[in-house]
Amino acid sequence: MVQAMIWKSDRLELIDQRYLPFEKNYFVCRTAQDAANGIREMVVRGAPAIGVTAAYGLVLALQASPTAGAFDAACELLAASRPTAVNLFDAIAYMKAGVGDVESGDAAARAEELAVAYHRDDLKKSHAMGEHGAGILEGRRSVLTHCNTGSLATAGWGTALGVIRQLHKEERLEMVYADETRPFLQGARLTVWECHEDQIPVKLVTDGMGGYLMTHGMVDCVIVGSDRISALGDVANKIGTFMLAMAARYHNIPFIVAAPTTTIDRNLLHGKDIPIEQREETEITHVRGQCITAPNTRVFNPAFDVTPSELVSAIVTEEGVFRYPYDFRTS
Amino acid sequence: MVQAMIWKSDRLELIDQRYLPFEKNYFVCRTAQDAANGIREMVVRGAPAIGVTAAYGLVLALQASPTAGAFDAACELLAASRPTAVNLFDAIAYMKAGVGDVESGDAAARAEELAVAYHRDDLKKSHAMGEHGAGILEGRRSVLTHCNTGSLATAGWGTALGVIRQLHKEERLEMVYADETRPFLQGARLTVWECHEDQIPVKLVTDGMGGYLMTHGMVDCVIVGSDRISALGDVANKIGTFMLAMAARYHNIPFIVAAPTTTIDRNLLHGKDIPIEQREETEITHVRGQCITAPNTRVFNPAFDVTPSELVSAIVTEEGVFRYPYDFRTS
Repeated sequence: MVQAMIWKSDRLELIDQRYLPFEKNYFVCRTAQDAANGIREMVVRGAPAIGVTAAYGLVLALQASPTAGAFDAACELLAASRPTAVNLFDAIAYMKAGVGDVESGDAAARAEELAVAYHRDDLKKSHAMGEHGAGILEGRRSVLTHCNTGSLATAGWGTALGVIRQLHKEERLEMVYADETRPFLQGARLTVWECHEDQIPVKLVTDGMGGYLMTHGMVDCVIVGSDRISALGDVANKIGTFMLAMAARYHNIPFIVAAPTTTIDRNLLHGKDIPIEQREETEITHVRGQCITAPNTRVFNPAFDVTPSELVSAIVTEEGVFRYPYDFRTS
Repeated sequence: MVQAMIWKSDRLELIDQRYLPFEKNYFVCRTAQDAANGIREMVVRGAPAIGVTAAYGLVLALQASPTAGAFDAACELLAASRPTAVNLFDAIAYMKAGVGDVESGDAAARAEELAVAYHRDDLKKSHAMGEHGAGILEGRRSVLTHCNTGSLATAGWGTALGVIRQLHKEERLEMVYADETRPFLQGARLTVWECHEDQIPVKLVTDGMGGYLMTHGMVDCVIVGSDRISALGDVANKIGTFMLAMAARYHNIPFIVAAPTTTIDRNLLHGKDIPIEQREETEITHVRGQCITAPNTRVFNPAFDVTPSELVSAIVTEEGVFRYPYDFRTS
């Protein structure tokens, strides 16, 4: 199974997801700035993987300069790298709390221990989610998924793809239909490739085909990940997810979200208040460097949408399965 | 306003829509076989434009050989070029009926007169649809549309884009959001370009963004064309249309279909019986000649989906506006 992130004591190696599956390059982070760049430029993506990258970024910051000023600056830099995924902020808060006084003792060593534990913990969570998620799906299934939520998006195994892997392990997976996931093509480039690597049966479809697949009984559930879940269960995820949720509801099939509890923002009640990142125009106007539209085309490019909680059949975390109506304020 | 098809007495010139807007080439049809190839290869596309092309194709067949055998062969050849759009079969039936006995008098001249009238008539229908459609939309509107339904898809003006043009003419169009329309990118390549040519305000979005636009009030209606409408009002249209219809229903905004009455298949009751063309894998795996996924990726590529009549707020034809429940059997 491919790994998105490899920690090497004084550097973090990220498989460069911008060029997969065409080229397998590593992007080496030696500073917190490198890690922030890697997140912003989508060398690494997927909410859990972003969180782990930020944790290691803070280790690199402390190795370079174990001062409160430098550490705080690194926290701010990493927090500003992408606005939607809450795991990023969770990881930074965890590191801050764990490291404590930056200028006492060997803060870099403490940070490294914390980051490695955070990384290992994310992998454990993926396996737990996979088991919980597969547990609520009876019999043999054909699954529609969106974006990439596998080993590349997490410390390994995956969130939604973790559930799919578990179904496959139990020999209950008929087929995965992977949305190509425009504009950045995470489904076409990453999910298909991960499935091939692990012999998971997969077919690629475009983002507008979900309705057809459901009407014809070719898929019987939708499983996706999330970048942020509000306290009342609204789900921010890759743009296009909400369309699948409405289609699943129309066809009365389950729409399942798999995400670690770190994805839940307990301080934010409603999905409408989740900040949605707007990304650059060329992500839409160009595919692999080639223009696909007329010159001077104006675009609108929100990276995420929000699915209202009422459309979400289940939220699967490492702690178990939650059902509508959701309330994560006190749990 | 650009024209998809130009008739020149002994040949039909088609603007080659496969290369727009990057190159403006003409594909010249001198035989019925050329016309069938042009339809199959999507040099020309859009249900009404396909119908007109087939009509001219039959003129070319009669010019080459005014025999019943050759004419029937040309009819069969053209009918086999694409399976979903019913306008194709309508045009062939109209030409057959109008030409009558192929071997008496100057059948080629009769056919030319019929085809030119069919072509001119399609343009008139577009203008009528535009007026009827704009008439049911009050005030200033922002419209989401899918695929290309403009001058390139018809004899001129357009079906759904005809309604949009009419709103623009009446200074009631705020913005058109054009779905890029994967896999063939008719929205990104053709609709955006047509809007630019005619100074219609347009922004390009990916096919998964409709839900976001509706939730944020950025669009207040969806207008699309159709390739075939069943007698009870189920609507076959470019893959991805059904997703927009479900999203429009969830947001309680109008989902309007604009199509000439030739698009209605009065002999076919239910949408589930409309044959859906499956197209080749490379349309999905490649964009402008470049591969966008892993090697040996399997795909599923239906060209159209069917929106159930209950989700269709109105069907706008040249004859007027129809509302659910639809029944075109006796009209």
